[in-house]
Amino acid sequence: MQKKAEAKQSAIVTPWEVKGNVDYNKVIKEFGTQPIDEKLLARIQKHTKKLHPFLRRQIFFCHRDMDRILDAYEKGEKFYLYTGRAPSGPVHLGHVVPWIFTKWLQDNFNAILLFQLPDEEKFLFKENLTLEESRKWAHENILDIIALGFDPKKTKIFLDTEYAGTMYKHACRVGKKITFSTAKAVFGFSNNTNIGQIFYTAMQSVPAFLPSIYEGKPTLCLIPYAIDQDPHFRITRDIAEALDYPKPASIQCRFLPGLHGLESHGKMSSSEESGAIYTTDNPEQVKKKVMKYAFSGGQATIEEHRKLGGNPYIDVSYQWLTFFEENDKKLENIYKEYKSGKLLTGELKTILINKLNQFLTEHQKKRELAKKHVEKFMMRD
Amino acid sequence: MQKKAEAKQSAIVTPWEVKGNVDYNKVIKEFGTQPIDEKLLARIQKHTKKLHPFLRRQIFFCHRDMDRILDAYEKGEKFYLYTGRAPSGPVHLGHVVPWIFTKWLQDNFNAILLFQLPDEEKFLFKENLTLEESRKWAHENILDIIALGFDPKKTKIFLDTEYAGTMYKHACRVGKKITFSTAKAVFGFSNNTNIGQIFYTAMQSVPAFLPSIYEGKPTLCLIPYAIDQDPHFRITRDIAEALDYPKPASIQCRFLPGLHGLESHGKMSSSEESGAIYTTDNPEQVKKKVMKYAFSGGQATIEEHRKLGGNPYIDVSYQWLTFFEENDKKLENIYKEYKSGKLLTGELKTILINKLNQFLTEHQKKRELAKKHVEKFMMRD
Repeated sequence: MQKKAEAKQSAIVTPWEVKGNVDYNKVIKEFGTQPIDEKLLARIQKHTKKLHPFLRRQIFFCHRDMDRILDAYEKGEKFYLYTGRAPSGPVHLGHVVPWIFTKWLQDNFNAILLFQLPDEEKFLFKENLTLEESRKWAHENILDIIALGFDPKKTKIFLDTEYAGTMYKHACRVGKKITFSTAKAVFGFSNNTNIGQIFYTAMQSVPAFLPSIYEGKPTLCLIPYAIDQDPHFRITRDIAEALDYPKPASIQCRFLPGLHGLESHGKMSSSEESGAIYTTDNPEQVKKKVMKYAFSGGQATIEEHRKLGGNPYIDVSYQWLTFFEENDKKLENIYKEYKSGKLLTGELKTILINKLNQFLTEHQKKRELAKKHVEKFMMRD
Repeated sequence: MQKKAEAKQSAIVTPWEVKGNVDYNKVIKEFGTQPIDEKLLARIQKHTKKLHPFLRRQIFFCHRDMDRILDAYEKGEKFYLYTGRAPSGPVHLGHVVPWIFTKWLQDNFNAILLFQLPDEEKFLFKENLTLEESRKWAHENILDIIALGFDPKKTKIFLDTEYAGTMYKHACRVGKKITFSTAKAVFGFSNNTNIGQIFYTAMQSVPAFLPSIYEGKPTLCLIPYAIDQDPHFRITRDIAEALDYPKPASIQCRFLPGLHGLESHGKMSSSEESGAIYTTDNPEQVKKKVMKYAFSGGQATIEEHRKLGGNPYIDVSYQWLTFFEENDKKLENIYKEYKSGKLLTGELKTILINKLNQFLTEHQKKRELAKKHVEKFMMRD
């Protein structure tokens, strides 16, 4: 079974589709990013004291130009953070992974964060989604973002349609540098692609340049994101110098797998409800979903499990704990006990359920409180 | 010579290029517009008392759905006017032709006018033009627009980059309905076209729908324009119903020929200075340009001219008088005297020079006064 898990199938990774068991080493090679190595981790740790578990565990696994960010920071220059969320539905646990890490970066490097909600993106790419619906979701999603604890003094959240008065002219500058041919090659566009979809990547590039625009001088930007967004930011980097802006640096994370497992789906998908846990799910829903759907690395019977042990590499509950159990010692114990057969699948699931419900109960409280603080974070024209 | 003038060559008419001697009957057929016939003229005249010379002389020569506009007007419903100017240089006399007519429509039908200055358009299409330059030209061009006498209470002038906070979201709605394939077929785009150019037509469609958006109910829009802009508005009409907006009506004019004549160039071009008269030219410059460059329909010698007469069909000075001499009787006399050989080319040119300088002296005074009134006309987010 472990063998099966290690045998990687060819996978698809684009901003609109992630399918199959993603081979992250292959991604690094194909996308031309740098792996995050020990040397870089040590250099980050000099400034942060502790390393975030997502770094220790290679959940954030590659980057571009993190060294330049640290060079600048060590010289006392400021850099901005930029991340985003294309709203078209509720936030699930996969979405919050890069945001949790972004907050950690904000706290440790005292950086201003630009949080883009491109409410036009999914509208342009989904036949039946209206702009009103995606804007409604944007306002729901903002509560989740705020609930994660970003600093209202250093965080600017904006919807593209509410900040287009500023963004559109810069998007035109960006768009002038991108030919249809490039967009087609990067995103796989065809003759049936609509002209809003074709232009959209220009709007996603703009926030990477806003730091230089706001500061009136070249200012670095670091973009944490899940690896599927990479095609957009490859374009952003390619055109930056032609526009006299520094290339944005970036740091990329793996996907939280869907409950159905690594083999069937590459990342958690909102469109498949049984595979996702939403930030608004109650403890009963979480329990039911994990118990019913979380793909198990355990054996067919208790007897076999005690004898052969479970496979944490394909067990979704264990994999999720690598994202949500911050304590390395605890995680290691769980790994050992599951692998040895001491811990049964049902018991492992219970550990995860408790962990998630602990996080979600707290998150839901903060999410409720966030309703009063939205305006402190919003940036509009 | 007359024969030569009547033999039409194949011409190019797109929003970015007008070349050759345009056969306007062919244009009507190819673009699918309706000729403006006696019946329609009579119906317009019922409301305007007099017909504008541009209508009497078929300078405005075709339309779409003018009947629907008149139906609505006769029922007491309001309609909006929409026209525009892509700023990338000074205004010349060719530009003001549709605007003069638009003002006449505003006065006679008491209509609100939306005047778009898409400052991103030429920036996207011209390699070396910066957005700062096109915005600078926009502010210069606005003075010419105001100088023509539009009613500040019923005229809203806007730059796309200053009104994108409103326009961009609607442009996304429009853009979702237009495939690359359609844009390619209509505008002749290729793989080298930049993604800003591809999206731009969506921004040009938006003002045709703003009347319905402002009024909160289906509201008609009439777009007067020079025929080269037709491809944009064919798309606008094609997608209107899918967005639940009424199709905009339109009325199209011929081009004022460049000074070098009908044969060499289809319309006056700002990029070729010797062929154009700008609204800021002084009387000496006008005299010099007309005397030196205006293509003549006269004979090689005075003797031959007296004997054979001039050819008003190819004589640019005469053709320009059909645009700028409002008095039909005077124009007819000039025609007869030039054709008979009584009026020499130099004398005809002097008539034109006086006419133009009379118009321009007045225009320049109003243009100067306009500087104080810009803000009354501007619409921003």
